[in-house]
Amino acid sequence: MGSSLSPLKVNYEVHVKNREKLLKSIRQHLSQSSLPLHGFVLLQGGDEQTRYDTDHLELFRQESYFAYLFGVQEPGFYGAIDVGSGDSILFAPRLPDEYAVWMGKIKKLSHFKEHYMVTKAYFTDEIVTVLQQHYQGSGKPLLFLLHGLNTDSNNFAKPAEFQGIDKFDKDLTILHPILTECRVIKSELEIELIQYANDISSEAHIEVMRKAKVGMKEYQLESIFLHHTYMYGGCRHCSYTCICATGDNSAVLHYGHAAAPNDKTLEDGDMALLDMGAEYHFYASDITCSYPINGKFTSDQSLIYNAVLDAHDAVIASMKPGVSWVDMHILSHKVILESLKKGHIIVGNVDDTMVALLGSVFMPHGLGHLLGLDTHDPGGYPKGLERRKEPGLKALRTARGLLEGMVITVEPGCYFIEALLLPAMNNPETSKFFNKEVITRFIGFGGVRIESDVLVTAAGCYNMTKCPREIHEIEAVMAGEPWPVKKTSTKIENGLESKA
Amino acid sequence: MGSSLSPLKVNYEVHVKNREKLLKSIRQHLSQSSLPLHGFVLLQGGDEQTRYDTDHLELFRQESYFAYLFGVQEPGFYGAIDVGSGDSILFAPRLPDEYAVWMGKIKKLSHFKEHYMVTKAYFTDEIVTVLQQHYQGSGKPLLFLLHGLNTDSNNFAKPAEFQGIDKFDKDLTILHPILTECRVIKSELEIELIQYANDISSEAHIEVMRKAKVGMKEYQLESIFLHHTYMYGGCRHCSYTCICATGDNSAVLHYGHAAAPNDKTLEDGDMALLDMGAEYHFYASDITCSYPINGKFTSDQSLIYNAVLDAHDAVIASMKPGVSWVDMHILSHKVILESLKKGHIIVGNVDDTMVALLGSVFMPHGLGHLLGLDTHDPGGYPKGLERRKEPGLKALRTARGLLEGMVITVEPGCYFIEALLLPAMNNPETSKFFNKEVITRFIGFGGVRIESDVLVTAAGCYNMTKCPREIHEIEAVMAGEPWPVKKTSTKIENGLESKA
Repeated sequence: MGSSLSPLKVNYEVHVKNREKLLKSIRQHLSQSSLPLHGFVLLQGGDEQTRYDTDHLELFRQESYFAYLFGVQEPGFYGAIDVGSGDSILFAPRLPDEYAVWMGKIKKLSHFKEHYMVTKAYFTDEIVTVLQQHYQGSGKPLLFLLHGLNTDSNNFAKPAEFQGIDKFDKDLTILHPILTECRVIKSELEIELIQYANDISSEAHIEVMRKAKVGMKEYQLESIFLHHTYMYGGCRHCSYTCICATGDNSAVLHYGHAAAPNDKTLEDGDMALLDMGAEYHFYASDITCSYPINGKFTSDQSLIYNAVLDAHDAVIASMKPGVSWVDMHILSHKVILESLKKGHIIVGNVDDTMVALLGSVFMPHGLGHLLGLDTHDPGGYPKGLERRKEPGLKALRTARGLLEGMVITVEPGCYFIEALLLPAMNNPETSKFFNKEVITRFIGFGGVRIESDVLVTAAGCYNMTKCPREIHEIEAVMAGEPWPVKKTSTKIENGLESKA
Repeated sequence: MGSSLSPLKVNYEVHVKNREKLLKSIRQHLSQSSLPLHGFVLLQGGDEQTRYDTDHLELFRQESYFAYLFGVQEPGFYGAIDVGSGDSILFAPRLPDEYAVWMGKIKKLSHFKEHYMVTKAYFTDEIVTVLQQHYQGSGKPLLFLLHGLNTDSNNFAKPAEFQGIDKFDKDLTILHPILTECRVIKSELEIELIQYANDISSEAHIEVMRKAKVGMKEYQLESIFLHHTYMYGGCRHCSYTCICATGDNSAVLHYGHAAAPNDKTLEDGDMALLDMGAEYHFYASDITCSYPINGKFTSDQSLIYNAVLDAHDAVIASMKPGVSWVDMHILSHKVILESLKKGHIIVGNVDDTMVALLGSVFMPHGLGHLLGLDTHDPGGYPKGLERRKEPGLKALRTARGLLEGMVITVEPGCYFIEALLLPAMNNPETSKFFNKEVITRFIGFGGVRIESDVLVTAAGCYNMTKCPREIHEIEAVMAGEPWPVKKTSTKIENGLESKA
């Protein structure tokens, strides 16, 4: 037990750079549209939420667009950027005296100004006055508010609201696509945070790998992971609810939620599919490891595992700026189907199986998604880029070409899901591809997913995840051999800001 | 490391009994009001929530009134009780085929019927038809819906909503007070769950006590606690965000939230105030331990600690049915002020300090609150019982007389809070009571809280919390001596159902 890591000191300059980038982009847009360089970007931070009608407070986590620009951990804030002057302004809630008794020291405005490195700090009840005073244009001051579609959830971002907003003109269309696009390309300081989240999460996965034993409960693996990333990594939040799926459960893509709560007992012969990632200073990691609980791969387990690993490696070997993510998704299917053919699970011509979309029977989810302040980071489908309709491809969270500075998950998988396999095996179009005798052996097998977080660089890409991936490596680590997870240098070759 | 406990097998009979109790109470009310014994209690369970506009799903936790009656862990349910026949009916969401691929096996209605021990199970889209068919009265069927004030949050419970509700008559006044009152008195099976949550949380507190060392971070104590209760206790949820306050922070009553996130380094000489409790099958524990991080109490620390412990013990020694909780609160102040006088921190006549409400300067919160499915369980102020206005007393979450079967926290505290102390020391009414020379020594001391969960029995009360409390016990445990936490027998003397 223990860790070779310690919590990264957060450099708040990351948010200064994020604001500068937005400012540059929005000014460029306004200039190109022959609009005046006046007005304020205004965002409303998140508020604390209570559970139903009670006074049970949920642990607050800042809204991600707000976190991107201001990095504020406290609830109840607003933040503005003056497009004209470039000034950044935080508005903090004016707390009652009683706050000092119940909640903690009341921090001064100067604290927030310094800590979050903004130009000015005021109280939220001063928004109207302050913005009016700062406005250099004529007429009503203009506010650029955040309103737009999240293409993963189909929900809309909620524009800021405050008393007196009627004294301003509002623009609801300009900010969202520009700010979202800023988030798509990560700066060096953002990469440093994602790398740290990856380092501590990789290490925690290895800790789980070493401790997983037949007879334990799935949720105990979750507990070990959470403890390692919090105790040694300072990660209070996870990027998403841990998926600790073993045996048959590993064929349930989003297992682990309240209705399927990681509560099975680990059995001899089970494969485990553990999809767990910690968040550090708002930035996510998202990592999946798959291995047999008893520490030794059977030949069937090796077959499926290596099919997925080959796909994972083939994609990473092909990734570089300009490459289409749709092509990568298709490549992963092809590699997996080729392996399944070699393993006699399917038969026939692999190109024909590709045409018949057999890949999406074994891997119904997308190959991967943008990663950043959200696990499913926004920006996958900017205006004009349509989602594909085919099975598998329709689940892709982005169909973009890769750009230097993107961080994207590479997470091919191969699952034996009865709800998909049985219809495909009975479908006259696809039944011919299945070797029914062999495939019967895999009913109840579950599935394998291998997921790494990959940074697109100028020359190719860089895998930020440091888990044992080869079968011999996993078996060695599970048998107690050391595994080197050293703190990663965050200087990755090739300047990343260049394209931003 | 390790545990002498293992997760309690949940007896779903607990919810059957809860429903029977409600049915009896509501029938009694209807009879007494000369109203017909017709209609349905109808509750809507909670739904999964996403984070802001994203598809990040928060881990679902059932709404507590719904959990009380049905114990359902899955989101999206409705539940009804037929007041006429006594039948209980669950309505489960009709899940799309895709659910099996992404979220898990689609459970049959018969599963829910058996697992949750209800009379019948249907889909939520059948509510209107099913309730109309079951209705034995004339005219529109009557629904008793949940609408009423939570006196801790000042929020209102949200009555069930569904398409077609206009086909029913609605009553919004009868159910809430009756159901809330049912929750106030715990059944034996409920007590068993609260006892288990207490046992695992007590043990986790001891684990933290043994591992706390100068140089660690406060959040590492939180991590140890969370890990112990989940890993060994199967507790996925905490009753509330952990308060891990050390040094000066221990004078912040609700420390630990996002704006004060348990991030101080533990220093030699610091007192720790650790308020942490796990939840098991919806039922809460709520426990506070206070001790010096270095494992040895100084004389000043002993003085304040024993002042609080004496108050804690005096209250528990006095608790029994019929005793007023306001009187217990006042008793705790009196014991603390007497100790502070003995310690020369305050001077003058203790009765005079009581009249001057000096107790609320040192202990601004209430003595304790009802505990159950919520940490601050509802029912503290039933209709007709007014909240007191005086400092301290106004913070009391109940002013009721104790009843057999109540579980209530006993959590006296003594804090040196500058925001309260300085005004009181400058106030001509109260300044004379402070020994300024001595009290200066305590600026920066922080505070002490000792909190146990106490069951009111027929003859007195029973402390469900099993932590070392005496100074010599704490010092021994911190020095590595064993501490016996044995699984508690849930058979507590004196039938508890008798008064329910």
